[in-house]
Amino acid sequence: MRHVDPMIGTQRMGHVYPGATVPFGMVQLSPDTDTIPYAVDGKYNPGVYSTCSGYQYDDSTIVGFSHTHFSGTGHSDLGDILLMPTTGPLQMNPGTAIAPQSGFRSVFHHKNEKATPGRYEVLLEDHGIKAELTATTRVGMHRYTFPRAETGHVILDLVHGIYNHVDKNVWTFVRVENDTLVTGYRQTNGWGRTRTVYFAMVFSKPIVHYGQQPDARPTEYRGFWRKFDQTNDFPEMAGRQLRAWFDFDMKAGEQLQVKVALSCVSTDGALKNMQAEVPQWDFDRVVHEAEEAWRNELGRIAITSKRPEVLTNFYTAMYHACLSPTVYMDVDGQYRGLDQNIHTAEGFTNYTTFSLWDTYRALHPLFNIIQRERSSDFVNSMLAHYDQSAQRMLPIWSHYANENWCMIGYHAVSVIADAQVKGIIGFDAQHALDACVATAEHRSFEGLGDYIDLGYVPEDRSGASVSKTLEYAYDDGCIAEMARHLGEKEVAKQFKARSTAYRNVFDSLSGFMRPRLADGSFLKMFDPMDTHQEGFIEGNAWNYGLYVPHQPDELAGMMGGQRRFGEHLDSLFTMELADKYFEKTEDITRDGIMGNYVHGNEPSHHVAYLYNYSDRPWMTGKRTREVMDRMYAPRPDGLSGNDDCGQMSAWYIFSAMGFYPMEPGSDLYEIGSPVVDGATISLPEGKELRIVVHKQGPRNVYLRSVRLRGERLDRSYLVHGELMAGGVLEFEMSAKTPKP
Amino acid sequence: MRHVDPMIGTQRMGHVYPGATVPFGMVQLSPDTDTIPYAVDGKYNPGVYSTCSGYQYDDSTIVGFSHTHFSGTGHSDLGDILLMPTTGPLQMNPGTAIAPQSGFRSVFHHKNEKATPGRYEVLLEDHGIKAELTATTRVGMHRYTFPRAETGHVILDLVHGIYNHVDKNVWTFVRVENDTLVTGYRQTNGWGRTRTVYFAMVFSKPIVHYGQQPDARPTEYRGFWRKFDQTNDFPEMAGRQLRAWFDFDMKAGEQLQVKVALSCVSTDGALKNMQAEVPQWDFDRVVHEAEEAWRNELGRIAITSKRPEVLTNFYTAMYHACLSPTVYMDVDGQYRGLDQNIHTAEGFTNYTTFSLWDTYRALHPLFNIIQRERSSDFVNSMLAHYDQSAQRMLPIWSHYANENWCMIGYHAVSVIADAQVKGIIGFDAQHALDACVATAEHRSFEGLGDYIDLGYVPEDRSGASVSKTLEYAYDDGCIAEMARHLGEKEVAKQFKARSTAYRNVFDSLSGFMRPRLADGSFLKMFDPMDTHQEGFIEGNAWNYGLYVPHQPDELAGMMGGQRRFGEHLDSLFTMELADKYFEKTEDITRDGIMGNYVHGNEPSHHVAYLYNYSDRPWMTGKRTREVMDRMYAPRPDGLSGNDDCGQMSAWYIFSAMGFYPMEPGSDLYEIGSPVVDGATISLPEGKELRIVVHKQGPRNVYLRSVRLRGERLDRSYLVHGELMAGGVLEFEMSAKTPKP
Repeated sequence: MRHVDPMIGTQRMGHVYPGATVPFGMVQLSPDTDTIPYAVDGKYNPGVYSTCSGYQYDDSTIVGFSHTHFSGTGHSDLGDILLMPTTGPLQMNPGTAIAPQSGFRSVFHHKNEKATPGRYEVLLEDHGIKAELTATTRVGMHRYTFPRAETGHVILDLVHGIYNHVDKNVWTFVRVENDTLVTGYRQTNGWGRTRTVYFAMVFSKPIVHYGQQPDARPTEYRGFWRKFDQTNDFPEMAGRQLRAWFDFDMKAGEQLQVKVALSCVSTDGALKNMQAEVPQWDFDRVVHEAEEAWRNELGRIAITSKRPEVLTNFYTAMYHACLSPTVYMDVDGQYRGLDQNIHTAEGFTNYTTFSLWDTYRALHPLFNIIQRERSSDFVNSMLAHYDQSAQRMLPIWSHYANENWCMIGYHAVSVIADAQVKGIIGFDAQHALDACVATAEHRSFEGLGDYIDLGYVPEDRSGASVSKTLEYAYDDGCIAEMARHLGEKEVAKQFKARSTAYRNVFDSLSGFMRPRLADGSFLKMFDPMDTHQEGFIEGNAWNYGLYVPHQPDELAGMMGGQRRFGEHLDSLFTMELADKYFEKTEDITRDGIMGNYVHGNEPSHHVAYLYNYSDRPWMTGKRTREVMDRMYAPRPDGLSGNDDCGQMSAWYIFSAMGFYPMEPGSDLYEIGSPVVDGATISLPEGKELRIVVHKQGPRNVYLRSVRLRGERLDRSYLVHGELMAGGVLEFEMSAKTPKP
Repeated sequence: MRHVDPMIGTQRMGHVYPGATVPFGMVQLSPDTDTIPYAVDGKYNPGVYSTCSGYQYDDSTIVGFSHTHFSGTGHSDLGDILLMPTTGPLQMNPGTAIAPQSGFRSVFHHKNEKATPGRYEVLLEDHGIKAELTATTRVGMHRYTFPRAETGHVILDLVHGIYNHVDKNVWTFVRVENDTLVTGYRQTNGWGRTRTVYFAMVFSKPIVHYGQQPDARPTEYRGFWRKFDQTNDFPEMAGRQLRAWFDFDMKAGEQLQVKVALSCVSTDGALKNMQAEVPQWDFDRVVHEAEEAWRNELGRIAITSKRPEVLTNFYTAMYHACLSPTVYMDVDGQYRGLDQNIHTAEGFTNYTTFSLWDTYRALHPLFNIIQRERSSDFVNSMLAHYDQSAQRMLPIWSHYANENWCMIGYHAVSVIADAQVKGIIGFDAQHALDACVATAEHRSFEGLGDYIDLGYVPEDRSGASVSKTLEYAYDDGCIAEMARHLGEKEVAKQFKARSTAYRNVFDSLSGFMRPRLADGSFLKMFDPMDTHQEGFIEGNAWNYGLYVPHQPDELAGMMGGQRRFGEHLDSLFTMELADKYFEKTEDITRDGIMGNYVHGNEPSHHVAYLYNYSDRPWMTGKRTREVMDRMYAPRPDGLSGNDDCGQMSAWYIFSAMGFYPMEPGSDLYEIGSPVVDGATISLPEGKELRIVVHKQGPRNVYLRSVRLRGERLDRSYLVHGELMAGGVLEFEMSAKTPKP
């Protein structure tokens, strides 16, 4: 755990947060820095992209500590229930980054900041307050040390949020239940269209006075406002935009502690969560328990390396891989469903934050090795989503009882098929298959009707048509594989046929996947290097066109055979990318690309492993090692692109151990080139897979041999079952390419 | 029941609605007419006052049928979940009253309208659709007969509402669950600050197509809207302002039925309510059951009269008296509490719509005779409110899990004391007393701290100070009485002392109750006739100054003795009210006043009975008969002021039978002058109180004698216990005043 550095990826493109959380926790208690949403005059805030997680390393001020954050996303939401402790005159405005004194925010410096798994600490310099944060699954705990004997304030800012439209609040509600307990909720219309977060907050000292900002014009009891002075000590507040303050008599050096429990159901639920998880006032004990939880998860893979940066990269990746999906259920099993009704999870833990277009690739396959019980919960959570969906579809990108429909494909089917194929139990497989089929047959979804009828998505009817066609074909292959497993031959046959749809968008003349129109013709305007080329999304024909992970041999054949295929891959990695093309490339930095290979975004994640299907399979090792060394670094800017809820990290974890699930939904892993010296993966039933790397070295990126349980493998893949049986997997490395 | 005319009071000031409901039902399914909120350009709609109930008799168009309405209030809210069936081209705008063709609304005529208890029918002339409505407690049922074979539309308008701010919607949400079931909710910030109504709606025929208005700009899945065409056949809609349409293939003369169940908890709750209350599609059976329910409630008092208008006035008053409070609980006992959490009512039915400043006077005392089980539920509902209140106060004016703080005093204590004194069981009396005391000691509420310290509310610190002082004093008398009942001598003593606070605002120089300042002096600017005089609310010193219902002898003494008191009352009823004063008088019509006696508003309701404490007690009979004859008439404009959730009607019911609870919280009734020829009140345990009126006649307004169970009474009051024992109560009438 000492190798984890939560600051890695907080600078530039990583979009992770440095705050306190436990593995897969509902609470992500983390500092929010400058930009949101104060940097803009109008309602749209394009600058929020850089602070999707609430935090950007280069910012110089902290606005406060909010309790929900995405890890690594390329789109923003959350930032709920912000607390800020302050001293001096009460300021109810956050102020600006340029003039932090103008509001309650504070300057901070990284030298006064400390982030470790489950704990965060920073000195709020404007107020002289040391703030420490920790968390359980559903409770955030704050400890503020005040510098002087004076009235200390805590601001509860329900206006604050993270989103690219400033005015996302729908309703906010606060009750001061007694002199230490405050409850309430915040309902927003952001990326999640109809989202509510309930909270219960307890202070370790009595509130002396409290109130709401007089200038925020909270909705009054209209016409009857004279009944009470509602700005001071009035225990019920509501409106679209609320900020409340709480005053405490503090001694010099005295600590004020705050526990904030969240719930997706009610303030009652939040209180129950608090009572169950943090009944006491022992901050250090909560830190200790959080660290234990992290130690347990991180310890599922133990690696060795002589290179400290490998240890840091790997364990930080493990840390980031255990942040999402997040628990979305109260301790009593209740949660808010997609239908906005309250449901009880029977026999599973309900989770949310499914960034599926990203995470189906390597994160969920990783879970199917080291988080098999949670994998079952994830599938059950997605099936509950399906059952509650008005569209009768599995999630696309879902969070907090909302479907945000982000990105393309229906990759829940990949996650489910991968779980099924890899022997995850505890869900209704037949129901899961039905859900996959229903989702894949939803004709009004993104060109799917045309795809079913024509075998491809026509660009003139639905944009990003090539990307969609390729991803649908892959997903359909997953459904076919799952159906085959369940003995559903008809379904298997039907979707097996659909899984070759990628052929229908291949233009043999140009040698690229190319957008096609409803009349069957290919789109004339076509630049395979342009990432804004019609037909593709977040990629171009050169790289996205390689997306046939489930039938790589056919892809290579279609592209001219193994040699031509190898040449294509080589030029992909080595070409000089003109600025005009780079400028259009999303979600990554210049460091995040190698030629036209864009590691900073997901469509390329399988690409280095495609070399195994070319005439130069050893290049898989060279390229993946290159990517590991160049795209991951133990620095705040060490992630070359959005971590995307752990997918970037999961790529590293697999690749570092020398294999990768190029085709989730099958039980195969492509063999790459380990960067670790050795690794031990804890498996169910006390088994272990020990990875031993002989002759490891920076230049020894090629494999000389691979042995499983002593037996030499003459293939470029591993099978899930043989890994799960445990034993020793040996790689022998070399600086030379193998003899042909 | 045939004597009930729901149209009475729908014109001008009555503010009742003519639609379909069952006694105390959660659903009030009624037509909404012109004004709301379309008559205004800006956001504030002063014109809504006349359509507080959604309906104003003089309006010429119907916008649709919504499911929640107040009965008789002087402030507006509700109007939730409006349906409108239409033919012809789809129109998604309600249009205007001046140009109804410009929208989906329709012209109607009263000759094509029929309202009876539990059933309403109207011809929507623009569409040729006959619309029939009925209801159970939680379900509204619609039956639309379409004129021609064509595509029929049903508009679901969630923009529509009743309130004086147009933009009260906070959030609206709709799901098309399948081809006949639609669910959703509407969350508003109106008079109720944080109010949500859930619904489930089932059609008797499959929906062919559906969608939402394209111009309403419902909140889209931002950035991802291209996924689907969300305006057509997209099953999930949400936003601040939603209107949806549903199309049906209709034959000529074919009927489309719709069931709409409400819930205060969830759409699941609404569905449960529907399944429990209207599992079938038999409209006529629902009508029949509603009529049975009405027959049962109305039959609790059977009167005889030779005058048809008395029968109509009386039974219509009985009908209006059984509309509020309203059930606020799902069939499974769950309801939303004041804390916005879901609670389960244990051992009682939860109610809302407590217009307590009005209804404590005669409506709740009426319930304590003929609705004793519900009285217990009402007390328990108010205690639940208290338990859930952040202020730790009993309700002031509460509806739908909200406190709207309307009007003054804390009259829940009167309702509770009246129940206690009159032997209502089934609530925790000690807890109830604690709640009363806590409420009465809430120092930050409306000058209450000063009132406790100084013995009166000082006008310079809290407005309407005389009205408040008088009402607090009365309420405190109720608490004293209740405490005495429970043997809590200290509490009784404390509040008995407070109950004489009215003395502290009596100015013996002017002979009037007069506003006083914190320094002890009386306010200099003082016009006892001015209803906008500082110190009073909805009244003036002449009439409101008589508000000492609990110590009328002391009042008479203070005002100069019985003769002077009698003279004051006489001049009150006979004086000529200058226009300048009338214009300022709220909530009533010219017909609603007699001199300076304002029957159209509540502070006068006890006044005619004060004659019993003057030198001319027989005038009680004369005045009350005069009020009954002049202020109640079997016409649409037959109510002279707001019915105020049944208080105006309850005044009539008591007065018509010859007695009135002038001092709720005591067990006394003042004897007046019956207008009925006879009456039978059904009492618990099969008992009956039979009222026999001898020598009844229009001019025989004076009492010659009163006999109870044959024994002549030589007093001007009756005691609750002696009425509840049953037997015969005889009045002998005369055209002459009794000999002195």
